[in-house]
Amino acid sequence: MSERFDTVDIIRVKRDRGTLSPEQIDWTIDAYTRGVIADEQMAALNMAILLNGMNREEISRWTAAMIASGERMDFSSLGKPTSDKHSTGGVGDKITLPLAPLVAVFGVAVPQLSGRGLGHTGGTLDKLEAIPGWRAALSNDEMMAQLADVGAVICAAGAGLAPADKKLYALRDVTATVEAIPLIASSIMSKKIAEGTGSLVLDVKVGSGAFMKNTDDARELAQTMVTLGKDAGVNTVALLTNMSTPLGLTAGNAIEVQESVEVLAGGGPSDVVELTVALAKEMLAAAGQPDADPAAALKDGRAMDVWRRMISAQGGDPDAELPVAKESETITASADGVLTELDALSVGVAAWRLGAGRARKEDAVQAGAGVRLHAKPGDTVRAGQPLMTLLTDTPEKFERAKEAVEGAAVIAPEASGVQPLIIDRIS
Amino acid sequence: MSERFDTVDIIRVKRDRGTLSPEQIDWTIDAYTRGVIADEQMAALNMAILLNGMNREEISRWTAAMIASGERMDFSSLGKPTSDKHSTGGVGDKITLPLAPLVAVFGVAVPQLSGRGLGHTGGTLDKLEAIPGWRAALSNDEMMAQLADVGAVICAAGAGLAPADKKLYALRDVTATVEAIPLIASSIMSKKIAEGTGSLVLDVKVGSGAFMKNTDDARELAQTMVTLGKDAGVNTVALLTNMSTPLGLTAGNAIEVQESVEVLAGGGPSDVVELTVALAKEMLAAAGQPDADPAAALKDGRAMDVWRRMISAQGGDPDAELPVAKESETITASADGVLTELDALSVGVAAWRLGAGRARKEDAVQAGAGVRLHAKPGDTVRAGQPLMTLLTDTPEKFERAKEAVEGAAVIAPEASGVQPLIIDRIS
Repeated sequence: MSERFDTVDIIRVKRDRGTLSPEQIDWTIDAYTRGVIADEQMAALNMAILLNGMNREEISRWTAAMIASGERMDFSSLGKPTSDKHSTGGVGDKITLPLAPLVAVFGVAVPQLSGRGLGHTGGTLDKLEAIPGWRAALSNDEMMAQLADVGAVICAAGAGLAPADKKLYALRDVTATVEAIPLIASSIMSKKIAEGTGSLVLDVKVGSGAFMKNTDDARELAQTMVTLGKDAGVNTVALLTNMSTPLGLTAGNAIEVQESVEVLAGGGPSDVVELTVALAKEMLAAAGQPDADPAAALKDGRAMDVWRRMISAQGGDPDAELPVAKESETITASADGVLTELDALSVGVAAWRLGAGRARKEDAVQAGAGVRLHAKPGDTVRAGQPLMTLLTDTPEKFERAKEAVEGAAVIAPEASGVQPLIIDRIS
Repeated sequence: MSERFDTVDIIRVKRDRGTLSPEQIDWTIDAYTRGVIADEQMAALNMAILLNGMNREEISRWTAAMIASGERMDFSSLGKPTSDKHSTGGVGDKITLPLAPLVAVFGVAVPQLSGRGLGHTGGTLDKLEAIPGWRAALSNDEMMAQLADVGAVICAAGAGLAPADKKLYALRDVTATVEAIPLIASSIMSKKIAEGTGSLVLDVKVGSGAFMKNTDDARELAQTMVTLGKDAGVNTVALLTNMSTPLGLTAGNAIEVQESVEVLAGGGPSDVVELTVALAKEMLAAAGQPDADPAAALKDGRAMDVWRRMISAQGGDPDAELPVAKESETITASADGVLTELDALSVGVAAWRLGAGRARKEDAVQAGAGVRLHAKPGDTVRAGQPLMTLLTDTPEKFERAKEAVEGAAVIAPEASGVQPLIIDRIS
């Protein structure tokens, strides 16, 4: 069959800083999905997009073409509003775990399609799989039934949503083209729009532990995604949040579940509570309930009730003991003073090297591995006091994990200003 | 086996406008040759090199690494100087055919390793294969014997020289990364340096029918290659020559051989003679004979003698009738006036579409196909007079060939300045 365009011509347009036509974009995504465009050709095009950019119309069409590559879900038969959250990924980011049941308390359905971790940012499914019996894979019918009954579901995205994105993401991962804002935005938004949620709140992380290292890039990504969502009829808002230090006091799998349960029990670290409540307020407002009080639902046990039902519905035992790492090593403070920095990336890499994350898609993760923090920026510390505990089943991993956190903690004689958790709101 | 570098890290360096270390470059070429770096990864790196460039040290090391990927030839046992010419490719560029025997007249050995054509620029081997019996493939021993005996050889490059370049060129061809100056320069020079020639003259074409469309790019490419050659101990000089109009009056295979034989007989179009003599003088001067008179050797038959021996040595019959196209169509002048432009690219594409060139490596070419010109820029023409004749064995090809040359000839009431053939010399 004769093709409508020539791949080399299309790469050349973007290489030479031109604009791809809607027809060229539709053909590119379709031809890549069909295998007519080879991986090496798409890799060259991706690098040209990363270095030369795409305009708003190109990004919007690219996203639409990826949605058109697969199926679309439809939650209208549920008879209740739907809201979803997406985080661009950070260290210790367990917010989805308390957030999904918390929002469901208010009668808003939360269809949270999640992924596994790759590299130093953990994956929500890896965390929940630390709970004995819990399973990530649900059919569309099971998902709809759980949304009708429990109101919240966290499960693996089926292969049917935006298959072009799946193929493209795997390619970007090995070709150093993950960091292109147009490609990140269209990858995230194609799946969220295809999923069919009515409203969406984006948690765009900025700082050493995030993809976006500076606020300008994060703001551009957030603005791009909000525009894409609104153009597609999804009520979308974004929070820019700080990822220069880990969220909460844990980075790992079982230990993050444990911390999430503390939050659902009305306790937990203040930053995790603050972000969970802020995102819940946004999701509820976007779904038509601007006056809901999610903080109260954490305190009075309603969110915990939904959590227990949500875990049980997917085969998990909410009362089961969580796996514990076999070995631990403690890192102590080197001086008296105030902890002014605790680098997110360093802690994330340490947790990953300890076994909490994976280097390749086919690797298994250790449920008990990770890093437990004993102090956060702003805390006063004394020389010799524990700063963090490294956890793993395989003690030969301690060495490289310790290398990762070397210099991660900065102790100064005086306190310096601590950055706010929520940096900006973009709507 | 554990690898010394991570491919994604290396792509990231060039993506972020950094400089690759010598060790990173050596590893990259070696790992790509071994298949450790995948095609999609090399494609992303090539696009980053095209858009972000390489510095002199990087280009030099990249070239050295490609040379190291294969064998090196050595002509020192010949006991005479060697000189070679490389053209970056143009329309009607048959200069190698008269040039190689002409230089050999003076006792300088010319080991001319050539290629086949792809796209609108013809290939030297395709042209010579129009001669009944002539064969392009020689063993290294056959090549050495012919250089010792006849003094000139034009043959196919063996697979042993710079195999990394072979793999890389095929990749660049399908990923729109052919046009990167560092990659063009290292591709050409790795083969020429590995070939072991003592001196080298580069014919860098500029204009519509060449890779380089403007003089600045052509000058940068020429300077880059001259530097690479000198750094490797090869006495290298470059001429920048005009490729806005075809060379001579023929673009094809058999018809270009015929025109070359006219030049060797002391006649032929003045531009072909001018460039052949200029390049011969450069090659002879670089090989230690600044006072040689190549124009005389064309006039008195000495160059023709070597040509006949060179063709015979490779199985060809220098007296055989050349193939003639079965069909022809004539394009005439639309007005009285002066022909001010005759676009090289248009004529090249027409010749290619008529069957003189190939769209894919595995295609065959027609020996008789091509375009014969009846006027050149600067000539006075009358309405209705023949401007060019299209030649092919397959008349269904006329239609698209005529489309290619539509508008190629510009006829004005008055003459305008004709561009010089030799634009600059870089040493």
